[in-house]
Amino acid sequence: MAIKPSSRIKFELNKSADVWSLFSPLVMPKTSLSLGQGFMSWKPPTYIRSAITKAIDSDTSVHHYSHPKGRPRLRNALSNHFSKQFKSLNGRKLDVESEIIVTAGANEAIYSILGAFLEQDDEVILFEPAFDQYMPNVRYNGGKEVYVPIRFHGDPTRNSTGDDWKIDINELIGAITPKTKAIIFNTPHNPIGKVFTREELQAIANVAIEHNLLVISDEVYESLTFDNATHDRIADVPGMWERTLTVGSAGKTFAATGWRVGWVIGHPDLVKATLATTMRIVFCVNSLAQEGTAVGFEEADQNNFFETQRKEYQERRDVLTKHLDQIGLPYTKPAGSYFILADISKVNFPEDYPFPENIKTRTRDFRFAWWMAHEFGVVAIPPSDFYGLSNQHLGEQFIRFAFCKEADILDEAGERIKGLSNYIK
Amino acid sequence: MAIKPSSRIKFELNKSADVWSLFSPLVMPKTSLSLGQGFMSWKPPTYIRSAITKAIDSDTSVHHYSHPKGRPRLRNALSNHFSKQFKSLNGRKLDVESEIIVTAGANEAIYSILGAFLEQDDEVILFEPAFDQYMPNVRYNGGKEVYVPIRFHGDPTRNSTGDDWKIDINELIGAITPKTKAIIFNTPHNPIGKVFTREELQAIANVAIEHNLLVISDEVYESLTFDNATHDRIADVPGMWERTLTVGSAGKTFAATGWRVGWVIGHPDLVKATLATTMRIVFCVNSLAQEGTAVGFEEADQNNFFETQRKEYQERRDVLTKHLDQIGLPYTKPAGSYFILADISKVNFPEDYPFPENIKTRTRDFRFAWWMAHEFGVVAIPPSDFYGLSNQHLGEQFIRFAFCKEADILDEAGERIKGLSNYIK
Ligand SMILES: Cc1ncc(COP(=O)(O)O)c(C=O)c1O
Ligand SMILES: Cc1ncc(COP(=O)(O)O)c(C=O)c1O
Repeated sequence: MAIKPSSRIKFELNKSADVWSLFSPLVMPKTSLSLGQGFMSWKPPTYIRSAITKAIDSDTSVHHYSHPKGRPRLRNALSNHFSKQFKSLNGRKLDVESEIIVTAGANEAIYSILGAFLEQDDEVILFEPAFDQYMPNVRYNGGKEVYVPIRFHGDPTRNSTGDDWKIDINELIGAITPKTKAIIFNTPHNPIGKVFTREELQAIANVAIEHNLLVISDEVYESLTFDNATHDRIADVPGMWERTLTVGSAGKTFAATGWRVGWVIGHPDLVKATLATTMRIVFCVNSLAQEGTAVGFEEADQNNFFETQRKEYQERRDVLTKHLDQIGLPYTKPAGSYFILADISKVNFPEDYPFPENIKTRTRDFRFAWWMAHEFGVVAIPPSDFYGLSNQHLGEQFIRFAFCKEADILDEAGERIKGLSNYIK
Repeated sequence: MAIKPSSRIKFELNKSADVWSLFSPLVMPKTSLSLGQGFMSWKPPTYIRSAITKAIDSDTSVHHYSHPKGRPRLRNALSNHFSKQFKSLNGRKLDVESEIIVTAGANEAIYSILGAFLEQDDEVILFEPAFDQYMPNVRYNGGKEVYVPIRFHGDPTRNSTGDDWKIDINELIGAITPKTKAIIFNTPHNPIGKVFTREELQAIANVAIEHNLLVISDEVYESLTFDNATHDRIADVPGMWERTLTVGSAGKTFAATGWRVGWVIGHPDLVKATLATTMRIVFCVNSLAQEGTAVGFEEADQNNFFETQRKEYQERRDVLTKHLDQIGLPYTKPAGSYFILADISKVNFPEDYPFPENIKTRTRDFRFAWWMAHEFGVVAIPPSDFYGLSNQHLGEQFIRFAFCKEADILDEAGERIKGLSNYIK
C-alpha cells in the first residue's frame, strides 16, 4: 500500500499541464525567442554585484543564518526606502522590529500570510486575471478561492489603457460571504499592466473595511511604472493600515528574480502573525541576497537606479508597442509592470493547424500562442490560465508578452512576428 | 475589529519566549562566547567561494529563477554524489527528474513534505529530543505531534556514547494509532550526537512498514561523522525506499547555513507530491547558492573536502571534550553532528542565583545555562525545549554545546568554564 498524498494537494497532482510547462523553452522550437516567463535577460546592477562579491570573502555572516525577521541591515534599508513612500505614516519611520519582515520572495510572503490568517474553508477573493500561484497558495492553507474578474471594456480593434479594465464593485460585494477572510490585490498588475487609481483603491477599501477583510496587496512591480503614472498603495487609504499587508520583491526591483528575497510591510499585529509562519517554513532567507538587496536600496539614489531603470523599461515597452502598432495588433498600453496584453480577437490563425492534443483542447489563446511560436519563433503566454475555470473565456481574447528583455531581443521578436499582419482581418 | 490570526498558529503566538530568544547573543552578557546556536564561525571553502564570485559577473542565470525542481547542474551533482551512497540503488543512478528536488533548506523540505502528506488531525511521531522546528511544522500542516523519547540509560557520573541512548520500540509501537501518518527521524542526531545503527534503523523500519507510515529522515549531519562511524540510511532498509524521504542540507554540508539550500531524495511518487508543495511555497531556491552547492559536490573529491572537514570537526570535538574531561563534567561522546550533550546532574550551581522570572520558572537546564553564561561567559543551550511539555524533565539533566566553532574559540570557552569543577560534587 503506497503512502497517500494529502487531499489538500490532489487538485494540483491531478491537473493537466499548466501554461509554464506547455510553453517552457524546453519544449518550444529551439530557435524561438521567449517573451514568455517574466525574468530579465540581464544581471542586477554592477554596484550591487560588486558589493556581494566583496562580502563573499570578507563577511562570514553572509554565509550563515540571518535573523528570521531579516538581516537588520536590510530591515533598516527597507524602512529608509519605504517610510517615505507610505503616506499614511505621516513622516514617521516604519519600525524595523515590528512593521517589516523579509521573506523568501513575494511568493513565500503571500503563502505565509495565508497560513497565518486562514481558517479551514475561509474564502479569499482573487481578481482575474490572477498570478497563478495565488490559487494553490490559498488552497494549501485550507482556503477557497473566489474569483472576481477585472473586466475589459475596451474596443478589441484599437489600443486600450488600464482605464479600460475595471473591477465592478457590485460584483465584488456580491462575492463576499460570511466566510470571506481576505482579498489578494495586485497593482501594478500582472498581466494587464494597469496601475490602479486612488478612487479604485478607495472603492475596494470600502468593501474590505465594511466586511472586516484582510488585504494582501501584491506590489512587486511598484518600482516599474511609466509615463509618470503614480503607484498608490491601498495601505494608505484611511482605515486600511491595520488590515493591509503590502508585499514586495527584490527580484522585480533589482532584476534578481533568483535571489528569492521579498518583504512584508504592515501593522505590527499582522506582521507578527506572518513572522510566526514564515520563520517555521524557511526559518530565514538567503543571507547573501539579503545583503545585496540592502545595498541595492542604500545606494539606489547615488546610482540614480530607480529612475534609470524606469526609463529603460519604458524604452523596452516602446520598442515592443511600436512593432505591435505596425502589425496592427491592438494592446493595452501598460502603465506599470513589464507585461503587455495584446488582443488577438482579430487574428485569423488557421484553426486546422496541427496542434498537439493538449493544446487543441484548450482555449483559443493556447492555440494562438502555439501557432505563433511554431510559425514565427516567438513565445508568449496565453493568459486564460490566470482565470478560474468558469471565466477562462474572458482570457482567451489576449496574449501576454513580457518585455523584461533587452531591446535587441524585443526588436528581433517584433521583426519575427511582422507576418502576423497577414492574418489580421 | 481586528483581523484574527488563524487558530492554527495560536499556540505559537501565545507561547512564552523560546530558548533561542532567551539565550540570543543580543540578550546574553556582551563578552560571552556563544556555543549556543548551530552555525559556523568560518566561511564555506575557498573553491566554492571563488566559483560563485566568478558566476556573479559571468552568468546571468545565477541571478534569476531556477527550475522549481532545482537547477539541473545541482540535481546532477546530487545524483552523482548520493547514488553511490544509497545502497538500495544497487549501483543505479538517482533519476534527476523524479527522485531529487532542491528545497529552501532542510527546514522548508520538512515543511513541504508534511504539507504534501498530512490530512487534518493526522499524527506524526517525533523522537525526543527533537529539532524544535518539527513541532510547528507538523501543526501548521494540520497534524498533531506525538512524542517518543530517546531514553538515556547511561551513568550520569561518567562519559557515555550514543549506545546509551535508546528508542524503546515498544514505546514507539504504543504511540501508533490509526491516525499515525509519519515518523520524523534524525541521524546523526541533534543534540545527542548519536549515529543510529543498522539494527536500530531496522527496528524502526519494521514499525513503519507494518503500519504503512511515511518516514521523513532528517540526515542534515550525514557528512559529519567521527571515529569512522558509519552513517546508515533508513531508506536503505529493505521495503523502506518507497516510504522514505531523505532530507539533506547544504548549510551543514558546506558551512553555509545562510544559503538556505536543502534537498529531498526518494521514490518518484513521494518526491512528486513534495514538489507540488515546495514549488507553491517558495517557487524555487536561491540560484546562486544552488550553483555554489553544485560546485561544492562536483569538486569535493579533488579538494579532499569531506575527509578534511570530518577531521577538522573531530579535532574541534576533541578540544571541547578534553576540557570537559578536565572539569569532570560527563558527556555523551558524539559520533556525528556538531553537538555535545553534557550531563549537569552533578553540578551544584546556586539555585538562589538572581535569575530573571522567565528563567526561574523553567526547568533546571535553563537555570544552569543562564548561570553559566553570567558567571563564566559561555553560552550553551538548555535542551529541555526539544522535548514535549510532559517530558521536559528528561532534558533538564543536560546542556548542549555546539562545536561548529574554530578551535581557539572552543579552547577559550573551555578555559572559561574551568571553574565549573568547583561546583561538581
Ligand atoms: C504579481 C506577482 N506576484 C508575485 C510574484 C512572485 O514574486 P517573487 O519572485 O518575489 O516570489 C510575481 C512573479 O512573477 C508576480 O508577477
Ligand atoms: C536536525 C536538524 N534538522 C534540520 C535543520 C535545518 O537545516 P537547514 O538550515 O538546512 O534548514 C537543523 C539545523 O539546525 C537541524 O539541526
